[in-house]
Amino acid sequence: MSDHYVIGLDFGTNSARAIIVNTTTGEEIGASVFDFPTGEKGILLDVRNPDLARQHPRDYLAAVTATISGAIEQAASSGDFSPDRIIGIGVDTTGSTPIPVDKDGTPLALRDEFANEPAAMAWLWKDHTGHAEAAEITALARKMRPEYLAKCGGVYSSEWFWSKILQCRRSNPRVFEAAYTWVEHADWMTGILTGTAHPDAIKRCICAAGHKAMFNPNWGGYPDAPFIEALDPALSRVRATLPDSAHNIAESAGGLSEEWAHNLGLVPGIPVAMGAFDAHLGAVGSGIRPGVLVKIIGTSCCDMLVAPMTQTVPDVPGLCGIVPESILPECFGLEAGQSAVGDIFNWFVSYMRPEGETHDTLTAKAAQLRPGESGLLALDWHNGNRCVLVDQRLTGGVIGMTLHTRPEELYRALIEATAFGARIIMERFLEYGVNVERIVNCGGISGKNALLMQIYADVMGRPLEISASAQTCALGAAMAGAVVAGKKAGGHDDFNEAAMAMARMDDKTYAPLPENQKMYDRLFALYKRLHDSFGVQGRQDSLFDVMKELLAIRDAARR
Amino acid sequence: MSDHYVIGLDFGTNSARAIIVNTTTGEEIGASVFDFPTGEKGILLDVRNPDLARQHPRDYLAAVTATISGAIEQAASSGDFSPDRIIGIGVDTTGSTPIPVDKDGTPLALRDEFANEPAAMAWLWKDHTGHAEAAEITALARKMRPEYLAKCGGVYSSEWFWSKILQCRRSNPRVFEAAYTWVEHADWMTGILTGTAHPDAIKRCICAAGHKAMFNPNWGGYPDAPFIEALDPALSRVRATLPDSAHNIAESAGGLSEEWAHNLGLVPGIPVAMGAFDAHLGAVGSGIRPGVLVKIIGTSCCDMLVAPMTQTVPDVPGLCGIVPESILPECFGLEAGQSAVGDIFNWFVSYMRPEGETHDTLTAKAAQLRPGESGLLALDWHNGNRCVLVDQRLTGGVIGMTLHTRPEELYRALIEATAFGARIIMERFLEYGVNVERIVNCGGISGKNALLMQIYADVMGRPLEISASAQTCALGAAMAGAVVAGKKAGGHDDFNEAAMAMARMDDKTYAPLPENQKMYDRLFALYKRLHDSFGVQGRQDSLFDVMKELLAIRDAARR
Repeated sequence: MSDHYVIGLDFGTNSARAIIVNTTTGEEIGASVFDFPTGEKGILLDVRNPDLARQHPRDYLAAVTATISGAIEQAASSGDFSPDRIIGIGVDTTGSTPIPVDKDGTPLALRDEFANEPAAMAWLWKDHTGHAEAAEITALARKMRPEYLAKCGGVYSSEWFWSKILQCRRSNPRVFEAAYTWVEHADWMTGILTGTAHPDAIKRCICAAGHKAMFNPNWGGYPDAPFIEALDPALSRVRATLPDSAHNIAESAGGLSEEWAHNLGLVPGIPVAMGAFDAHLGAVGSGIRPGVLVKIIGTSCCDMLVAPMTQTVPDVPGLCGIVPESILPECFGLEAGQSAVGDIFNWFVSYMRPEGETHDTLTAKAAQLRPGESGLLALDWHNGNRCVLVDQRLTGGVIGMTLHTRPEELYRALIEATAFGARIIMERFLEYGVNVERIVNCGGISGKNALLMQIYADVMGRPLEISASAQTCALGAAMAGAVVAGKKAGGHDDFNEAAMAMARMDDKTYAPLPENQKMYDRLFALYKRLHDSFGVQGRQDSLFDVMKELLAIRDAARR
Repeated sequence: MSDHYVIGLDFGTNSARAIIVNTTTGEEIGASVFDFPTGEKGILLDVRNPDLARQHPRDYLAAVTATISGAIEQAASSGDFSPDRIIGIGVDTTGSTPIPVDKDGTPLALRDEFANEPAAMAWLWKDHTGHAEAAEITALARKMRPEYLAKCGGVYSSEWFWSKILQCRRSNPRVFEAAYTWVEHADWMTGILTGTAHPDAIKRCICAAGHKAMFNPNWGGYPDAPFIEALDPALSRVRATLPDSAHNIAESAGGLSEEWAHNLGLVPGIPVAMGAFDAHLGAVGSGIRPGVLVKIIGTSCCDMLVAPMTQTVPDVPGLCGIVPESILPECFGLEAGQSAVGDIFNWFVSYMRPEGETHDTLTAKAAQLRPGESGLLALDWHNGNRCVLVDQRLTGGVIGMTLHTRPEELYRALIEATAFGARIIMERFLEYGVNVERIVNCGGISGKNALLMQIYADVMGRPLEISASAQTCALGAAMAGAVVAGKKAGGHDDFNEAAMAMARMDDKTYAPLPENQKMYDRLFALYKRLHDSFGVQGRQDSLFDVMKELLAIRDAARR
């Protein structure tokens, strides 16, 4: 029997990639990357409003053609391969990245009248313009529907679906009125590929709906009409366009449309799996199962766990969400994360620009330092705090500078800060009785930054495993493509089977060094002090309002 | 009648300079600078111990010859001048910068056996190795002699005389035993020039003795024998070498020795005024008098006030000291200051090294920013806090960073932090009823950084005047030379007269802009929150011990 192949299509923050994977061996025989051309590294920014981050949907369409064609071209040199052996496609994207679309399902930004209007584009996950609206939603839910908050960690975030739509209504009524509904990037992609992007036909994935839009079967789907009405009557019209059901990645969004099959040289009708967020499919590509914490460490970090739906899972405050089947079918998906990790190191190199230094030189010098010897302590909140404080109105910080402090010391302090943030999340899971037996790491940073991984192992006090694939998100998407294709077609019947065939661990494991661990325990205690003083409300003489007041002053000064 | 001239000899942190000034017009007709050759910019550092900062006394000797000869050479082109018209010399140095000397008055570092021993060199003002000893002295004085503390702001500093000697005893008994006594840099220089450097003959200035060594006529001079014995019996031997009196700058240390007169081409026997610290003579060179706060803004900042000794002056906690005649005769001298100002900006440019940026480019870009618009807030404690917390175990800090924060924003935040620190000091004076009618600024930064001066005016809410001379410390020293020479010889009979003839204001005054002032009031309130949380002991949920614990961890990690 000949081998079969699946495509994993992965939309990241700055670029998209497609990979072609052998369903039997897990071998990746073709890959292609496409950098989004619009804005700064694919992101439209606004100097007057640092909270704003948008993407142009036309970049998404260009990426499909470029990456799949590129991957096929590369795979063609593989002996056995031909495009008609591709039996399924899976897709992951960032999120919550909602796109306003018209009654035909066309993104407003693809219409001439809105071509250059940021509010008409995709509202990228890291857009924080809706922070006031997020606070409003949290306050209302606390009063009216506390159960909504319990499933999303106790606080509704500015990074999420409803905050963004409500912010659009407030800041750009013209776009808000022109938008018939709002579609998550992941759902729009599977809708496009299967010709079901029309608002009446489009299927929505449980991953985005459950984690970002307060969808839960417990209360019959999306937030109910009275709640939306109380939030803002204008939203009721949007709420009415949303379906009653949402779908997991074992389900098909439909077959590949004739048009796309023709464009890409693929077989029409091959199944396209329901989409999910990159982190969720990264966890799948890392072989997630109950007891395994998967950390996807890249520009930001996502922490993923699953628990069988036959068990009861407590509501853990400060998580991003607990959603049935958001990661694997028949399991609760638990998501947590950090708003920025690699982005912080990139900021230091690209914005602070220490002369003559690169990530490599700084890493090499930082590796020569012993834990604690710089005297520095940093906070990893340059992009706010996603977990466990769930507060975007927090900012970065560092103390301990002297007249002798050097760039590599600050660089290491920033790495350590993200490690302390990672420990806070792990400890929150453990505190609520969620089982963490193993920790598997994947994502851009885990495979290439040994210093960071060792610091994480030392700070967290746990051995850290690494996924063998450098593209676990795309691999997880490919696995979803294999599962919707099914065993009979050359794929797999479930994710367990797919993981056995396609997901692998690296040989390298990072073990904590007891001496470093001891030093980091002392530093972590100090990190916790800053964390709680700036981040937790209601403590006497705390600094809780200081960062918030600074941001209020900043916003006033820029106006 | 022909004009007469005086020499002002000024020893700074990285270099020394001599100027030759006309006693009638204040015109500076010759100047010469000498960069100390030893160590990093004249300072011997220790990578394993960032608290250490020493200087080699041979650099001081080389500086006398180089700067005075250079200044005379330049002055020679002036029509009327000849070296025999020089009628007096004044000297200022940094401090407390004590030098261990042997029984003959020779600095130990000038003896072969100690030539490369840091402990045998001058312990530069910014050496903080004696922080534990400073705490010990403070604790003992609080118990045994609270009056000692009342005159030095309530806390004895690691930058001062006894902390350094006690630290030497603990860390280097060999040097401690070899040292017959310890002599302040200022006193050693006047001793050298007048041939009175022998321990039995050397005169000690009230400025150093009073502000740094707990000398006060109220209790009969230096700390009494029982106190020193209780501190450490080994110090009693050093205490016994100290005289009962100390001298102000209207007094002569003696006449210029034959040897130096010959070397320098000057008239033997011309009077050399008693030395004082650079900041004190900077205040004199800026025309200090009751009601005028003089700020000497350079690598660090000194805040100087005088009050007639006919009045009662309250003990203001957090000052560096209240000492009779330490600045002007017949006035109390009040000193406060910040441990680092320009040093912090230099750290940012030289250590953090933002690519392509200089002080000039960063200042130009920072000047484009509005107050508050960066969202940043910094603490100016990179070299500890001299006033009003008097705590060297504090460090720098900054909060408010986002992924978009740029170097010029940080640069401006650092300037603002030093301005907030300056306001804290001014408010402390006012709070205790010390009169501040005018503020005159001098020192390297005040004349050349208009952005900084405007920010200071906006933050302090006061118009800021600028001294016309770029070298007010050296000018103040020259004025002291003119006063010890006396009117009959072509000088002046008192400092009031000298100031009228020789000290001038610049035309430029910086007036606060009401709009900026309002914004900075909001930011200052937040600065005060951080200041008190990290800096003030005994508040609930404060972060008081965090910086200290970080330094303890750092010191442990480096050992």
